Amino acid sequence: MTVRFSSRVDISAPNPIAAAEAKARAQGVTLGKLNDSNPTRHGLAPAEVPGEYTAEPRGPRAAREALARFLSAGLDHPQSALRTAPAGGGREEGVDPDSLYLLSSTSQAYSWLIKLLCDAGDAVLAPKPGYPLIESIARLECVDTIEYQLQFDGSWYIDTAAIEELLYSPEGDRIRALVLINPNNPTGSYVKPEERAMLVRLCRERGIAIIADEVFYDYALEPFDGNARLAGETGALTFALDGFSKMLAAPHAKVGWIRVSGPEGDVREAQRRLDVIADDYLPMSDIIAARLPELLSVAPRQTARVRDRVRANLATLHTLLARDEHRLVDVLRAEGGWNVLLRVPAVIDENELVLRLIGTRRLTGQPGYFFDMTTNGYLALSLLPEADEFRANVTAVLDTVAAMLDLD
Amino acid sequence: MTVRFSSRVDISAPNPIAAAEAKARAQGVTLGKLNDSNPTRHGLAPAEVPGEYTAEPRGPRAAREALARFLSAGLDHPQSALRTAPAGGGREEGVDPDSLYLLSSTSQAYSWLIKLLCDAGDAVLAPKPGYPLIESIARLECVDTIEYQLQFDGSWYIDTAAIEELLYSPEGDRIRALVLINPNNPTGSYVKPEERAMLVRLCRERGIAIIADEVFYDYALEPFDGNARLAGETGALTFALDGFSKMLAAPHAKVGWIRVSGPEGDVREAQRRLDVIADDYLPMSDIIAARLPELLSVAPRQTARVRDRVRANLATLHTLLARDEHRLVDVLRAEGGWNVLLRVPAVIDENELVLRLIGTRRLTGQPGYFFDMTTNGYLALSLLPEADEFRANVTAVLDTVAAMLDLD
Ligand SMILES: Cc1ncc(COP(=O)(O)O)c(C=O)c1O
Ligand SMILES: Cc1ncc(COP(=O)(O)O)c(C=O)c1O
Repeated sequence: MTVRFSSRVDISAPNPIAAAEAKARAQGVTLGKLNDSNPTRHGLAPAEVPGEYTAEPRGPRAAREALARFLSAGLDHPQSALRTAPAGGGREEGVDPDSLYLLSSTSQAYSWLIKLLCDAGDAVLAPKPGYPLIESIARLECVDTIEYQLQFDGSWYIDTAAIEELLYSPEGDRIRALVLINPNNPTGSYVKPEERAMLVRLCRERGIAIIADEVFYDYALEPFDGNARLAGETGALTFALDGFSKMLAAPHAKVGWIRVSGPEGDVREAQRRLDVIADDYLPMSDIIAARLPELLSVAPRQTARVRDRVRANLATLHTLLARDEHRLVDVLRAEGGWNVLLRVPAVIDENELVLRLIGTRRLTGQPGYFFDMTTNGYLALSLLPEADEFRANVTAVLDTVAAMLDLD
Repeated sequence: MTVRFSSRVDISAPNPIAAAEAKARAQGVTLGKLNDSNPTRHGLAPAEVPGEYTAEPRGPRAAREALARFLSAGLDHPQSALRTAPAGGGREEGVDPDSLYLLSSTSQAYSWLIKLLCDAGDAVLAPKPGYPLIESIARLECVDTIEYQLQFDGSWYIDTAAIEELLYSPEGDRIRALVLINPNNPTGSYVKPEERAMLVRLCRERGIAIIADEVFYDYALEPFDGNARLAGETGALTFALDGFSKMLAAPHAKVGWIRVSGPEGDVREAQRRLDVIADDYLPMSDIIAARLPELLSVAPRQTARVRDRVRANLATLHTLLARDEHRLVDVLRAEGGWNVLLRVPAVIDENELVLRLIGTRRLTGQPGYFFDMTTNGYLALSLLPEADEFRANVTAVLDTVAAMLDLD
């Protein structure tokens, strides 16, 4: 089934003037513009922001080319976490700069894609436990979030049968996108090859797009096999999100991107409409775009640095938990990302635990219900802090749990 | 009437943990965060993007302070185009950095404000003739645009009686905002003091917010009296938009802002909700924010430079039109901005005129119907080009009009 798009985007037939302009362009004729209100084309740009503003909806061409080269280089290394496994199993071609949209965050990417795909009252499927921002962003677009469950049985898996049921239920008609977070936050679980195959097939069958948030992809916490980025997936219309927030440990840079792939007809129609949205906002600053090649060049170093940090902290965590005399706390197996979930004895109210940490340790945190965990007893723990702070955080949790059980 | 806000923004009561965090903050206690996923707080930011990410919804504090100082300085000069006339006539206080939201364009500002104010199916009032992007942006938010008319009788005025009628009509209930463009594009007309007084009163009566787009404010084309920015208006909830696209002739810098003012209760509630929206997107990059003071310092120079250009071209235009033997074309009086409207003989189809310019002069343009002019015979002309190009553009129009009437 081809993907159905929202009615928010105006793609009405061009007026005769726009048509004549397009024809001239196709013939290689450059037209002057009587009403050109771009000051940078008339020698008026400030020296402090040099260059001519090209107003390309997908972002400045040179910046997209630099990004495409960077992403394509990742594909050359079979061990690289940037590697994409194409559905057919063949080796992927280089990344096309025209498949990329540059913008200022993955939050903005979610917002554009929901506009592209969903009318008011439509819905997106998102993982539970999951990243709470998705529901908030969807709501700002007048779109509902329907949660699908991740189940834990020693490792996390997606309940694909439940997704199939949802998509074929009466409610299924208003579901326009499936959000996959790869790896998910805070469960740290990657999308598994069997899950992917099933979900891609389902989405294609139902004309539903995949929004694949892969900001944590490069942060594998342990060796794994068979995982792959959804970016570049050709079996169903796929929008893969990534950016500098995690890849460069630079959330303050405000650089994100969408990569579009999938069946040719769906991709063409999606890009025609996404170009209209992008053209209305044009968010990528030339000040940032000019620095993209330099910033991309430090990505491997930054990713390695943060990966070393989170892996070292995870090892510390295992040591501290094993050493703890009470053995009351354990950590759910996490495959990737920056966070893990601690599990505390179910007799402790997770909410009380955090309130106690605030009151006695000047430490706050997010218990499981923040992420829609279905049972009590979880606490998210960041693996980012420097070694001393990390140890102190873990110790504070262990001591507080013991105190709450009168064990200290 | 207090302003009614949309249901898109989740302002449900804070959970006990958020409440305890707020209480600690109020007591001056800084809490650690077990789940802190901000890498810049853990020594992991790349040297290329230094600093700690503060994730302030309204934009980095130092940048807002620099902007507030810049805007306040404008208020010191009674002749300054930045001057605001407060409704009461008194001298305005300095601009509060906390009334400012930094973002990446006025397009984005429109999008946030429509989300803040309008549910799906609600409507905003926007000027006709006017800036076509507003309708497109509103549609992306599932919101309708209802046009109000500007009338020309030698100069442009707003049909305030028609707006009053609209606001009190059955349809009036779904109108949530009045867009005022000051000066409007492409009519070049400022909002007049009597119009302002009437519209502020109406908006307050009906609980409707004003979105005042003042990007062209500083580009007065002739001396005028009694005009003022709506920014800082206290009589009704007002969101004033501005940015570097016009002020610095730097659309590629991607810097815009919203300034909030109005009755205290409305402002408080508006900012509480706008903070939620801003917090979901956090679009302002520290790379740009760090350069804000430097860029603001060149604003006066850049504004003066562009103002000289547009005024000189307007003088050239008058000369060329007066010298034209056929006297077929005239220009509607424009008070400010970068564009003017040429009027050609009504026997010429404006669409045909542009198609002919494309075919014979390699020049395209926007006829009046692009801006919803109600009658045929208009063509928008940019005052930005360098002198030679500007002359050539005007001459091309005059010659083509003459040729279409077989006068050459
Ligand atoms: C799953 C997930 N996606 C996206 C983001 C944020 O990305 P951005 O800063 O580009 O909006 C986060 C941040 O924590 C995240 O956890
Ligand atoms: C009335 C008006 N508002 C806003 C803008 C654009 O501002 P920005 O580049 O900040 O989105 C324009 C640009 O032409 C305009 O004419």
